[in-house]
Amino acid sequence: MHATAHPELDPQTLQVLAFDIFGTIVDWHGSIALEMQERYPQVDGDAFALAWRAGYAPAMARVMAGELPWTLIDDLHRQILDGILPGFGLAHLGEAERVQLNLVWHRLAAWPDVVAALTRLKRKYILCTLSNGNLNLLTRLSKQAALPWDCILSAETFQAYKPDPRTYGGVARVFDVAPAQVMLVATHHDDLSAARACGLRTAYIERPLELGAKHTKDGRPQAGNELHARDLLALADLLGC
Amino acid sequence: MHATAHPELDPQTLQVLAFDIFGTIVDWHGSIALEMQERYPQVDGDAFALAWRAGYAPAMARVMAGELPWTLIDDLHRQILDGILPGFGLAHLGEAERVQLNLVWHRLAAWPDVVAALTRLKRKYILCTLSNGNLNLLTRLSKQAALPWDCILSAETFQAYKPDPRTYGGVARVFDVAPAQVMLVATHHDDLSAARACGLRTAYIERPLELGAKHTKDGRPQAGNELHARDLLALADLLGC
Repeated sequence: MHATAHPELDPQTLQVLAFDIFGTIVDWHGSIALEMQERYPQVDGDAFALAWRAGYAPAMARVMAGELPWTLIDDLHRQILDGILPGFGLAHLGEAERVQLNLVWHRLAAWPDVVAALTRLKRKYILCTLSNGNLNLLTRLSKQAALPWDCILSAETFQAYKPDPRTYGGVARVFDVAPAQVMLVATHHDDLSAARACGLRTAYIERPLELGAKHTKDGRPQAGNELHARDLLALADLLGC
Repeated sequence: MHATAHPELDPQTLQVLAFDIFGTIVDWHGSIALEMQERYPQVDGDAFALAWRAGYAPAMARVMAGELPWTLIDDLHRQILDGILPGFGLAHLGEAERVQLNLVWHRLAAWPDVVAALTRLKRKYILCTLSNGNLNLLTRLSKQAALPWDCILSAETFQAYKPDPRTYGGVARVFDVAPAQVMLVATHHDDLSAARACGLRTAYIERPLELGAKHTKDGRPQAGNELHARDLLALADLLGC
Protein backbone atom coordinates (compact mmCIF):
# COMPACT_ATOMS: atom_id res chain seq x y z
CA MET A 1 0.00 0.00 0.00
CA HIS A 2 2.92 2.37 -0.55
CA ALA A 3 2.67 5.29 -2.96
CA THR A 4 4.54 5.33 -6.27
CA ALA A 5 4.76 7.75 -9.17
CA HIS A 6 2.28 5.65 -11.13
CA PRO A 7 0.32 3.72 -8.53
CA GLU A 8 -2.04 2.39 -11.19
CA LEU A 9 0.88 0.39 -12.59
CA ASP A 10 2.21 -0.93 -9.27
CA PRO A 11 0.88 -4.44 -8.63
CA GLN A 12 1.43 -4.01 -4.88
CA THR A 13 -0.89 -1.05 -4.43
CA LEU A 14 -4.41 -1.52 -3.10
CA GLN A 15 -6.56 0.49 -5.52
CA VAL A 16 -10.16 -0.64 -5.29
CA LEU A 17 -12.51 -1.14 -2.33
CA ALA A 18 -15.55 -3.20 -3.36
CA PHE A 19 -18.44 -3.10 -0.91
CA ASP A 20 -21.16 -5.58 -0.17
CA ILE A 21 -24.38 -3.60 0.28
CA PHE A 22 -27.18 -5.43 2.12
CA GLY A 23 -26.15 -5.45 5.77
CA THR A 24 -22.71 -3.93 5.21
CA ILE A 25 -23.80 -0.53 3.87
CA VAL A 26 -27.54 -0.45 4.46
CA ASP A 27 -29.73 -1.60 7.33
CA TRP A 28 -32.17 -3.75 5.37
CA HIS A 29 -33.74 -5.26 8.51
CA GLY A 30 -34.39 -1.97 10.28
CA SER A 31 -35.61 -0.23 7.13
CA ILE A 32 -38.08 -2.96 6.23
CA ALA A 33 -39.32 -3.37 9.80
CA LEU A 34 -39.88 0.40 10.06
CA GLU A 35 -41.73 0.61 6.75
CA MET A 36 -43.93 -2.35 7.71
CA GLN A 37 -44.74 -0.68 11.03
CA GLU A 38 -45.85 2.45 9.16
CA ARG A 39 -47.81 0.68 6.39
CA TYR A 40 -49.15 -2.43 8.13
CA PRO A 41 -48.82 -1.96 11.91
CA GLN A 42 -50.65 -5.24 12.59
CA VAL A 43 -47.72 -7.20 11.10
CA ASP A 44 -44.58 -8.23 13.02
CA GLY A 45 -42.07 -6.16 11.03
CA ASP A 46 -39.07 -7.96 12.48
CA ALA A 47 -40.38 -11.38 11.42
CA PHE A 48 -41.50 -10.01 8.04
CA ALA A 49 -38.05 -8.59 7.25
CA LEU A 50 -36.36 -11.84 8.23
CA ALA A 51 -38.80 -13.93 6.17
CA TRP A 52 -38.30 -11.76 3.09
CA ARG A 53 -34.53 -11.91 3.37
CA ALA A 54 -34.62 -15.66 4.07
CA GLY A 55 -35.97 -16.26 0.58
CA TYR A 56 -33.07 -14.45 -1.01
CA ALA A 57 -30.26 -17.01 -0.99
CA PRO A 58 -32.48 -19.93 -2.13
CA ALA A 59 -33.87 -17.82 -5.00
CA MET A 60 -30.38 -16.91 -6.23
CA ALA A 61 -29.31 -20.53 -5.86
CA ARG A 62 -32.14 -21.57 -8.20
CA VAL A 63 -30.91 -19.04 -10.78
CA MET A 64 -27.31 -20.18 -10.51
CA ALA A 65 -28.41 -23.84 -10.74
CA GLY A 66 -30.23 -23.07 -13.99
CA GLU A 67 -33.70 -23.80 -12.57
CA LEU A 68 -34.60 -20.16 -13.28
CA PRO A 69 -33.28 -18.03 -16.14
CA TRP A 70 -31.19 -14.98 -15.23
CA THR A 71 -33.45 -12.92 -12.96
CA LEU A 72 -32.84 -9.53 -11.37
CA ILE A 73 -33.04 -9.18 -7.59
CA ASP A 74 -36.01 -6.81 -7.95
CA ASP A 75 -37.93 -9.67 -9.53
CA LEU A 76 -36.69 -12.26 -7.05
CA HIS A 77 -37.71 -9.94 -4.20
CA ARG A 78 -41.18 -9.70 -5.72
CA GLN A 79 -41.54 -13.47 -6.09
CA ILE A 80 -40.47 -13.96 -2.46
CA LEU A 81 -42.83 -11.19 -1.33
CA ASP A 82 -45.80 -12.79 -3.09
CA GLY A 83 -44.90 -16.02 -1.33
CA ILE A 84 -44.75 -14.63 2.21
CA LEU A 85 -47.69 -12.17 2.16
CA PRO A 86 -50.39 -14.78 2.94
CA GLY A 87 -48.52 -15.99 6.03
CA PHE A 88 -48.59 -12.45 7.42
CA GLY A 89 -52.28 -11.88 6.70
CA LEU A 90 -51.59 -9.69 3.66
CA ALA A 91 -52.82 -11.92 0.84
CA HIS A 92 -55.33 -9.22 -0.07
CA LEU A 93 -52.71 -6.66 -1.16
CA GLY A 94 -53.26 -5.49 -4.74
CA GLU A 95 -50.70 -5.10 -7.50
CA ALA A 96 -49.97 -1.40 -6.85
CA GLU A 97 -49.39 -2.02 -3.15
CA ARG A 98 -47.09 -4.95 -3.88
CA VAL A 99 -45.09 -2.89 -6.38
CA GLN A 100 -44.67 -0.08 -3.85
CA LEU A 101 -43.77 -2.44 -1.02
CA ASN A 102 -41.22 -4.25 -3.17
CA LEU A 103 -39.49 -0.92 -3.81
CA VAL A 104 -38.62 -0.69 -0.11
CA TRP A 105 -35.35 -2.31 -1.22
CA HIS A 106 -34.63 0.89 -3.18
CA ARG A 107 -35.18 2.98 -0.04
CA LEU A 108 -33.03 1.19 2.53
CA ALA A 109 -31.24 3.48 4.96
CA ALA A 110 -27.45 3.48 5.24
CA TRP A 111 -25.83 2.79 8.61
CA PRO A 112 -24.94 6.11 10.27
CA ASP A 113 -21.16 5.79 9.73
CA VAL A 114 -21.34 5.11 5.99
CA VAL A 115 -21.42 8.47 4.20
CA ALA A 116 -18.69 10.07 6.29
CA ALA A 117 -16.46 7.00 6.00
CA LEU A 118 -16.93 6.56 2.24
CA THR A 119 -16.11 10.24 1.75
CA ARG A 120 -12.79 9.69 3.53
CA LEU A 121 -12.01 6.41 1.76
CA LYS A 122 -12.86 7.89 -1.65
CA ARG A 123 -9.91 10.29 -1.45
CA LYS A 124 -7.49 7.36 -1.65
CA TYR A 125 -9.31 4.47 -3.33
CA ILE A 126 -11.74 3.67 -6.11
CA LEU A 127 -14.99 2.79 -4.33
CA CYS A 128 -17.41 0.43 -6.01
CA THR A 129 -20.33 -1.70 -5.02
CA LEU A 130 -20.25 -5.46 -5.48
CA SER A 131 -23.75 -6.55 -4.63
CA ASN A 132 -26.26 -9.08 -5.84
CA GLY A 133 -28.71 -6.15 -6.08
CA ASN A 134 -29.41 -5.09 -9.65
CA LEU A 135 -28.07 -1.83 -11.11
CA ASN A 136 -31.42 -0.06 -10.81
CA LEU A 137 -31.82 -0.98 -7.16
CA LEU A 138 -28.23 -0.05 -6.32
CA THR A 139 -28.39 3.25 -8.21
CA ARG A 140 -31.67 4.42 -6.65
CA LEU A 141 -30.71 3.23 -3.17
CA SER A 142 -27.35 4.98 -3.44
CA LYS A 143 -28.89 8.18 -4.75
CA GLN A 144 -31.42 8.52 -1.93
CA ALA A 145 -28.73 7.71 0.66
CA ALA A 146 -26.12 9.99 -1.02
CA LEU A 147 -23.51 7.24 -1.27
CA PRO A 148 -20.50 8.57 -3.20
CA TRP A 149 -19.52 5.51 -5.28
CA ASP A 150 -17.06 5.87 -8.10
CA CYS A 151 -18.75 3.00 -9.91
CA ILE A 152 -21.70 0.71 -9.32
CA LEU A 153 -20.94 -2.92 -10.10
CA SER A 154 -23.54 -5.61 -9.62
CA ALA A 155 -24.20 -9.27 -10.20
CA GLU A 156 -26.10 -7.84 -13.18
CA THR A 157 -22.80 -6.55 -14.60
CA PHE A 158 -21.36 -10.05 -14.54
CA GLN A 159 -24.57 -12.04 -15.03
CA ALA A 160 -23.70 -14.15 -12.00
CA TYR A 161 -24.52 -13.93 -8.31
CA LYS A 162 -21.99 -13.86 -5.50
CA PRO A 163 -20.32 -16.13 -4.44
CA ASP A 164 -19.66 -17.01 -8.10
CA PRO A 165 -15.96 -16.30 -8.90
CA ARG A 166 -16.98 -14.28 -11.96
CA THR A 167 -18.15 -11.52 -9.66
CA TYR A 168 -14.98 -11.14 -7.57
CA GLY A 169 -12.63 -11.71 -10.48
CA GLY A 170 -14.79 -9.42 -12.55
CA VAL A 171 -14.04 -6.42 -10.33
CA ALA A 172 -10.29 -6.86 -10.90
CA ARG A 173 -10.79 -7.33 -14.64
CA VAL A 174 -13.05 -4.28 -14.98
CA PHE A 175 -10.46 -2.03 -13.31
CA ASP A 176 -7.49 -3.76 -15.01
CA VAL A 177 -5.75 -4.54 -11.73
CA ALA A 178 -4.50 -7.69 -10.00
CA PRO A 179 -6.99 -9.39 -7.65
CA ALA A 180 -4.77 -8.43 -4.69
CA GLN A 181 -5.31 -4.76 -5.58
CA VAL A 182 -9.00 -5.17 -4.72
CA MET A 183 -10.38 -5.49 -1.19
CA LEU A 184 -13.90 -6.76 -0.56
CA VAL A 185 -15.56 -5.09 2.42
CA ALA A 186 -18.46 -7.09 3.85
CA THR A 187 -20.19 -8.24 6.99
CA HIS A 188 -20.62 -11.84 5.79
CA HIS A 189 -17.83 -14.38 6.18
CA ASP A 190 -19.01 -16.58 3.31
CA ASP A 191 -18.80 -13.63 0.92
CA LEU A 192 -15.33 -12.70 2.14
CA SER A 193 -14.11 -16.28 2.02
CA ALA A 194 -15.20 -16.65 -1.61
CA ALA A 195 -13.48 -13.38 -2.47
CA ARG A 196 -10.24 -14.57 -0.87
CA ALA A 197 -10.39 -17.73 -2.95
CA CYS A 198 -10.26 -15.41 -5.99
CA GLY A 199 -7.21 -13.57 -4.67
CA LEU A 200 -8.96 -10.49 -3.30
CA ARG A 201 -8.06 -8.94 0.05
CA THR A 202 -10.87 -8.85 2.60
CA ALA A 203 -12.14 -6.62 5.40
CA TYR A 204 -14.86 -7.74 7.82
CA ILE A 205 -17.29 -5.18 9.24
CA GLU A 206 -19.18 -6.20 12.39
CA ARG A 207 -22.73 -4.80 11.95
CA PRO A 208 -24.09 -6.55 15.08
CA LEU A 209 -27.63 -5.28 14.42
CA GLU A 210 -27.90 -6.55 10.83
CA LEU A 211 -30.62 -9.04 11.81
CA GLY A 212 -32.30 -6.72 14.31
CA ALA A 213 -31.84 -6.20 18.03
CA LYS A 214 -33.43 -9.56 18.85
CA HIS A 215 -30.95 -11.57 16.81
CA THR A 216 -27.39 -10.47 17.50
CA LYS A 217 -24.63 -11.68 15.22
CA ASP A 218 -21.35 -13.22 16.25
CA GLY A 219 -19.00 -10.48 15.10
CA ARG A 220 -15.79 -11.90 16.50
CA PRO A 221 -12.74 -11.86 14.23
CA GLN A 222 -12.27 -14.92 12.03
CA ALA A 223 -9.04 -16.11 10.50
CA GLY A 224 -8.28 -15.06 6.95
CA ASN A 225 -9.53 -11.50 6.87
CA GLU A 226 -6.74 -8.98 6.49
CA LEU A 227 -8.76 -6.34 8.32
CA HIS A 228 -11.51 -6.45 10.95
CA ALA A 229 -13.36 -3.25 11.79
CA ARG A 230 -16.28 -2.28 13.98
CA ASP A 231 -17.66 -0.02 11.25
CA LEU A 232 -16.49 1.87 8.15
CA LEU A 233 -15.02 4.76 10.13
CA ALA A 234 -12.78 2.22 11.87
CA LEU A 235 -11.92 0.79 8.44
CA ALA A 236 -10.94 4.25 7.23
CA ASP A 237 -8.68 4.57 10.27
CA LEU A 238 -7.05 1.20 9.55
CA LEU A 239 -6.45 2.21 5.92
CA GLY A 240 -4.95 5.56 6.92
CA CYS A 241 -7.70 7.64 5.29
CA MET B 1 -42.09 16.25 -16.56
CA HIS B 2 -44.67 16.99 -13.85
CA ALA B 3 -44.23 15.71 -10.33
CA THR B 4 -46.41 12.96 -8.90
CA ALA B 5 -46.55 11.15 -5.60
CA HIS B 6 -44.67 8.20 -7.12
CA PRO B 7 -42.76 9.67 -10.07
CA GLU B 8 -40.94 6.39 -10.63
CA LEU B 9 -44.26 4.86 -11.67
CA ASP B 10 -45.43 7.69 -13.95
CA PRO B 11 -44.60 6.90 -17.57
CA GLN B 12 -44.66 10.62 -18.44
CA THR B 13 -41.88 11.66 -16.11
CA LEU B 14 -38.35 12.19 -17.38
CA GLN B 15 -36.19 10.30 -14.88
CA VAL B 16 -32.80 9.59 -16.40
CA LEU B 17 -30.26 11.79 -18.17
CA ALA B 18 -27.69 9.69 -20.03
CA PHE B 19 -24.57 11.54 -21.12
CA ASP B 20 -22.21 10.95 -23.98
CA ILE B 21 -18.68 11.56 -22.65
CA PHE B 22 -16.01 12.23 -25.32
CA GLY B 23 -16.66 15.77 -26.54
CA THR B 24 -19.86 16.27 -24.56
CA ILE B 25 -18.42 16.04 -21.03
CA VAL B 26 -14.66 16.04 -21.56
CA ASP B 27 -12.38 17.99 -23.91
CA TRP B 28 -10.52 15.05 -25.45
CA HIS B 29 -8.89 17.20 -28.13
CA GLY B 30 -7.55 19.88 -25.81
CA SER B 31 -6.43 17.37 -23.17
CA ILE B 32 -4.50 15.21 -25.64
CA ALA B 33 -2.97 18.20 -27.45
CA LEU B 34 -1.81 19.63 -24.11
CA GLU B 35 -0.30 16.37 -22.92
CA MET B 36 1.51 15.91 -26.25
CA GLN B 37 2.87 19.42 -25.97
CA GLU B 38 4.25 18.59 -22.52
CA ARG B 39 5.64 15.13 -23.37
CA TYR B 40 6.67 15.48 -27.03
CA PRO B 41 6.79 19.19 -27.92
CA GLN B 42 8.17 18.40 -31.39
CA VAL B 43 4.83 16.79 -32.36
CA ASP B 44 1.79 18.71 -33.66
CA GLY B 45 -0.56 17.96 -30.77
CA ASP B 46 -3.65 19.14 -32.65
CA ALA B 47 -3.00 16.78 -35.57
CA PHE B 48 -2.05 13.96 -33.19
CA ALA B 49 -5.29 14.26 -31.23
CA LEU B 50 -7.36 14.28 -34.42
CA ALA B 51 -5.49 11.29 -35.88
CA TRP B 52 -5.95 9.25 -32.70
CA ARG B 53 -9.65 10.04 -32.55
CA ALA B 54 -10.10 9.38 -36.27
CA GLY B 55 -9.22 5.74 -35.72
CA TYR B 56 -11.96 5.32 -33.14
CA ALA B 57 -15.11 4.89 -35.24
CA PRO B 58 -13.48 2.50 -37.77
CA ALA B 59 -12.10 0.36 -34.94
CA MET B 60 -15.51 0.06 -33.28
CA ALA B 61 -17.08 -0.70 -36.65
CA ARG B 62 -14.71 -3.64 -37.06
CA VAL B 63 -15.79 -4.97 -33.66
CA MET B 64 -19.48 -4.57 -34.44
CA ALA B 65 -18.99 -6.21 -37.86
CA GLY B 66 -17.44 -9.22 -36.16
CA GLU B 67 -13.99 -8.69 -37.71
CA LEU B 68 -12.61 -8.24 -34.19
CA PRO B 69 -13.89 -9.95 -31.03
CA TRP B 70 -15.38 -7.74 -28.31
CA THR B 71 -12.59 -5.28 -27.47
CA LEU B 72 -12.51 -2.54 -24.83
CA ILE B 73 -11.85 1.03 -25.90
CA ASP B 74 -8.62 1.08 -23.88
CA ASP B 75 -7.34 -1.68 -26.16
CA LEU B 76 -8.69 -0.08 -29.34
CA HIS B 77 -7.04 3.22 -28.32
CA ARG B 78 -3.75 1.36 -27.90
CA GLN B 79 -4.01 -0.33 -31.32
CA ILE B 80 -4.75 3.03 -32.96
CA LEU B 81 -1.90 4.66 -31.04
CA ASP B 82 0.59 2.04 -32.21
CA GLY B 83 -0.61 2.69 -35.76
CA ILE B 84 -0.16 6.48 -35.72
CA LEU B 85 3.09 6.82 -33.74
CA PRO B 86 5.43 6.25 -36.74
CA GLY B 87 3.71 8.99 -38.76
CA PHE B 88 4.48 11.47 -35.98
CA GLY B 89 8.12 10.45 -35.60
CA LEU B 90 7.44 8.48 -32.39
CA ALA B 91 8.02 4.92 -33.57
CA HIS B 92 10.80 4.62 -31.01
CA LEU B 93 8.51 4.88 -27.96
CA GLY B 94 8.86 1.89 -25.67
CA GLU B 95 6.15 -0.16 -24.01
CA ALA B 96 6.06 1.83 -20.74
CA GLU B 97 5.78 5.14 -22.60
CA ARG B 98 2.99 3.79 -24.79
CA VAL B 99 1.07 2.50 -21.77
CA GLN B 100 1.36 5.86 -20.04
CA LEU B 101 0.41 7.82 -23.16
CA ASN B 102 -2.61 5.58 -23.78
CA LEU B 103 -3.84 6.40 -20.28
CA VAL B 104 -4.29 10.05 -21.31
CA TRP B 105 -7.87 8.95 -22.07
CA HIS B 106 -8.29 8.34 -18.31
CA ARG B 107 -7.09 11.88 -17.56
CA LEU B 108 -9.21 13.98 -19.94
CA ALA B 109 -10.38 17.29 -18.49
CA ALA B 110 -14.07 18.13 -18.20
CA TRP B 111 -15.42 21.27 -19.89
CA PRO B 112 -15.60 24.08 -17.30
CA ASP B 113 -19.42 24.05 -17.01
CA VAL B 114 -19.73 20.32 -16.31
CA VAL B 115 -19.32 19.80 -12.56
CA ALA B 116 -21.56 22.70 -11.54
CA ALA B 117 -24.24 21.71 -14.04
CA LEU B 118 -24.24 18.01 -13.15
CA THR B 119 -24.52 18.95 -9.48
CA ARG B 120 -27.70 20.90 -10.28
CA LEU B 121 -29.15 18.25 -12.61
CA LYS B 122 -28.46 15.49 -10.09
CA ARG B 123 -30.97 16.93 -7.62
CA LYS B 124 -33.81 16.10 -10.01
CA TYR B 125 -32.65 13.28 -12.28
CA ILE B 126 -30.67 10.07 -12.28
CA LEU B 127 -27.44 10.92 -14.07
CA CYS B 128 -25.58 8.19 -15.91
CA THR B 129 -22.92 7.93 -18.55
CA LEU B 130 -23.64 6.22 -21.86
CA SER B 131 -20.27 6.10 -23.55
CA ASN B 132 -18.31 3.73 -25.71
CA GLY B 133 -15.51 4.15 -23.19
CA ASN B 134 -15.02 1.10 -20.97
CA LEU B 135 -15.98 1.06 -17.29
CA ASN B 136 -12.39 1.44 -16.11
CA LEU B 137 -11.75 4.45 -18.34
CA LEU B 138 -15.05 6.09 -17.38
CA THR B 139 -14.58 5.46 -13.66
CA ARG B 140 -11.03 6.79 -13.47
CA LEU B 141 -11.78 9.75 -15.75
CA SER B 142 -14.85 10.62 -13.67
CA LYS B 143 -12.98 10.27 -10.39
CA GLN B 144 -10.14 12.61 -11.37
CA ALA B 145 -12.64 15.14 -12.75
CA ALA B 146 -15.03 14.76 -9.76
CA LEU B 147 -18.05 13.98 -11.95
CA PRO B 148 -21.00 13.11 -9.70
CA TRP B 149 -22.66 10.29 -11.67
CA ASP B 150 -25.32 8.17 -10.07
CA CYS B 151 -24.28 5.24 -12.27
CA ILE B 152 -21.66 4.56 -14.92
CA LEU B 153 -23.05 2.71 -17.91
CA SER B 154 -20.86 1.83 -20.86
CA ALA B 155 -20.83 -0.05 -24.12
CA GLU B 156 -19.06 -2.61 -21.91
CA THR B 157 -22.25 -2.97 -19.84
CA PHE B 158 -24.21 -3.92 -22.97
CA GLN B 159 -21.39 -5.54 -24.98
CA ALA B 160 -22.27 -3.32 -27.94
CA TYR B 161 -21.04 0.05 -29.13
CA LYS B 162 -23.22 3.06 -29.84
CA PRO B 163 -25.09 3.53 -32.12
CA ASP B 164 -26.25 -0.08 -31.55
CA PRO B 165 -29.86 -0.01 -30.23
CA ARG B 166 -28.88 -2.33 -27.37
CA THR B 167 -27.06 0.59 -25.75
CA TYR B 168 -29.90 3.14 -25.82
CA GLY B 169 -32.61 0.61 -25.05
CA GLY B 170 -30.34 -0.86 -22.41
CA VAL B 171 -30.40 2.34 -20.35
CA ALA B 172 -34.20 2.24 -20.15
CA ARG B 173 -34.16 -1.46 -19.29
CA VAL B 174 -31.51 -1.07 -16.58
CA PHE B 175 -33.55 1.63 -14.83
CA ASP B 176 -36.90 -0.08 -15.49
CA VAL B 177 -38.41 2.95 -17.22
CA ALA B 178 -39.93 3.67 -20.63
CA PRO B 179 -37.49 4.88 -23.32
CA ALA B 180 -39.21 8.30 -23.26
CA GLN B 181 -38.22 8.63 -19.60
CA VAL B 182 -34.57 8.73 -20.68
CA MET B 183 -32.88 11.69 -22.38
CA LEU B 184 -29.56 11.29 -24.16
CA VAL B 185 -27.36 14.38 -23.87
CA ALA B 186 -24.67 14.58 -26.54
CA THR B 187 -22.81 16.83 -28.93
CA HIS B 188 -23.06 14.42 -31.89
CA HIS B 189 -26.15 14.34 -34.07
CA ASP B 190 -25.63 10.75 -35.22
CA ASP B 191 -25.64 9.56 -31.59
CA LEU B 192 -28.79 11.56 -30.82
CA SER B 193 -30.55 10.39 -33.96
CA ALA B 194 -29.91 6.73 -33.11
CA ALA B 195 -31.19 7.33 -29.57
CA ARG B 196 -34.39 8.90 -30.91
CA ALA B 197 -34.95 5.85 -33.11
CA CYS B 198 -35.04 3.84 -29.85
CA GLY B 199 -37.61 6.17 -28.30
CA LEU B 200 -35.27 8.24 -26.13
CA ARG B 201 -35.56 12.01 -25.80
CA THR B 202 -32.53 13.97 -26.93
CA ALA B 203 -30.66 17.14 -26.01
CA TYR B 204 -27.90 18.58 -28.21
CA ILE B 205 -24.96 20.42 -26.59
CA GLU B 206 -22.92 22.69 -28.87
CA ARG B 207 -19.27 22.23 -27.80
CA PRO B 208 -17.88 24.31 -30.69
CA LEU B 209 -14.27 23.59 -29.65
CA GLU B 210 -14.58 19.81 -29.56
CA LEU B 211 -12.18 19.43 -32.51
CA GLY B 212 -9.92 22.30 -31.44
CA ALA B 213 -9.89 25.99 -32.24
CA LYS B 214 -8.75 25.36 -35.83
CA HIS B 215 -11.73 23.16 -36.70
CA THR B 216 -14.97 24.71 -35.55
CA LYS B 217 -18.12 22.58 -35.55
CA ASP B 218 -21.48 23.52 -37.02
CA GLY B 219 -23.48 23.76 -33.80
CA ARG B 220 -26.72 25.07 -35.29
CA PRO B 221 -29.93 23.43 -34.10
CA GLN B 222 -31.09 20.42 -36.09
CA ALA B 223 -34.62 19.07 -36.29
CA GLY B 224 -35.57 16.27 -33.97
CA ASN B 225 -33.80 17.22 -30.77
CA GLU B 226 -36.20 18.16 -28.00
CA LEU B 227 -33.61 20.46 -26.44
CA HIS B 228 -30.66 22.43 -27.77
CA ALA B 229 -28.25 24.04 -25.32
CA ARG B 230 -25.01 25.95 -25.51
CA ASP B 231 -23.60 23.99 -22.56
CA LEU B 232 -24.77 21.95 -19.58
CA LEU B 233 -25.58 25.00 -17.45
CA ALA B 234 -27.99 26.08 -20.20
CA LEU B 235 -29.41 22.54 -20.21
CA ALA B 236 -29.97 22.75 -16.44
CA ASP B 237 -31.82 26.03 -17.02
CA LEU B 238 -34.01 24.43 -19.71
CA LEU B 239 -34.83 21.52 -17.39
CA GLY B 240 -35.68 23.81 -14.49
CA CYS B 241 -32.83 22.61 -12.27
